Amino acid sequence: MSNYQFNHSDLLAMDRLYRTNLINSISGFKSANLIGTISQEKVSNLAIFSSVIHIGANPPLIGMISRPDSVPRHTLENIQYLKHYTINAVTENMFPQAHQTAARYDADISEFEAVGLKKEFLPDFPAPFVRESPIKIGVQLREILEIKSNGTYLVIGEVQKIELPQEAIFEDGKVDLEFLKVACISGLDTYHGTHCLARLAYAKPGKTLKIL
Amino acid sequence: MSNYQFNHSDLLAMDRLYRTNLINSISGFKSANLIGTISQEKVSNLAIFSSVIHIGANPPLIGMISRPDSVPRHTLENIQYLKHYTINAVTENMFPQAHQTAARYDADISEFEAVGLKKEFLPDFPAPFVRESPIKIGVQLREILEIKSNGTYLVIGEVQKIELPQEAIFEDGKVDLEFLKVACISGLDTYHGTHCLARLAYAKPGKTLKIL
Repeated sequence: MSNYQFNHSDLLAMDRLYRTNLINSISGFKSANLIGTISQEKVSNLAIFSSVIHIGANPPLIGMISRPDSVPRHTLENIQYLKHYTINAVTENMFPQAHQTAARYDADISEFEAVGLKKEFLPDFPAPFVRESPIKIGVQLREILEIKSNGTYLVIGEVQKIELPQEAIFEDGKVDLEFLKVACISGLDTYHGTHCLARLAYAKPGKTLKIL
Repeated sequence: MSNYQFNHSDLLAMDRLYRTNLINSISGFKSANLIGTISQEKVSNLAIFSSVIHIGANPPLIGMISRPDSVPRHTLENIQYLKHYTINAVTENMFPQAHQTAARYDADISEFEAVGLKKEFLPDFPAPFVRESPIKIGVQLREILEIKSNGTYLVIGEVQKIELPQEAIFEDGKVDLEFLKVACISGLDTYHGTHCLARLAYAKPGKTLKIL
């Protein structure tokens, strides 16, 4: 294979869409989640995010990047209003509906109805979950950090509630995402299923790695 | 399947390792990258990160979460010192070596040699790349944001250089991560390959989704 090298000046001179596709791909596979919120006007909103990441387990924190100028533009407003939102795993069975939530629907339209996913409420939690999603996470807003380099935000919430199938939880707490057919994303628009290569033991200097 | 519900009080009362495994899994699949740095004492350092994320394409920004108290503890110091670092995709062919970089080697030991991955320098860039990695990204530090909720940091860099095989780039700039056998991670320690489900067209309200 012959390698291609892009330098900083190449990136700046690049066609905008080409650069968007390239830079969105190179950091690797991304999580696929639907963020459920409610607006001040009581409209349920649902938006796909590929930027949800683990921040820490103690306290249990999850982050996501929000682009105020981009498609899921109602989500951030709603999170700031209600301070509660939901994170719902996207699976191989419903990724087309999940993708469709990225369309620019008006603020008075609920994406749940527009794309055909079912709204579900769980006890003591004000934001809507996605019934079809096997991993439902209820989150309370903790921090919004501004990323000055491009005017985006890192939104951080603390996990208040998790619902998932008992059969998918290993004895040590790990969740079998593959068994639940959770999808991942590359670039802006490509969805992937996965196959397990190996679960590896905790690494120590000078020790041969064990497969669990 | 019968569902299990964890509430906030369950999460707080949970065994520490169980919670770590659970919370590390639920946000979905994660990217797999090796971060290459150099210390003030000129020792090359290599550390696996599952928290590398896309921040924006214009300017081209990539972020990652750094835990000062956790394993890849030399990486942040080195980034602050040299202001340049590399991001290298982990593949199905070398994920065990990549995982082994998480072992707590002393600061005077280079993980490149310890795990058996080759160091490579590219023109006009001071930090070391991983020769075996098909996607090599040279990054310059832009911002370090403190996440107050748990004392971790979001480290943001601007892409200065990208090297990757020409055959892996689609006409519109998207990179075929699957063709390059790039791996992804679930939880703390499980590596996965992927299979493409579909590439979907830009979503618009009221339009049927097209597969590209």
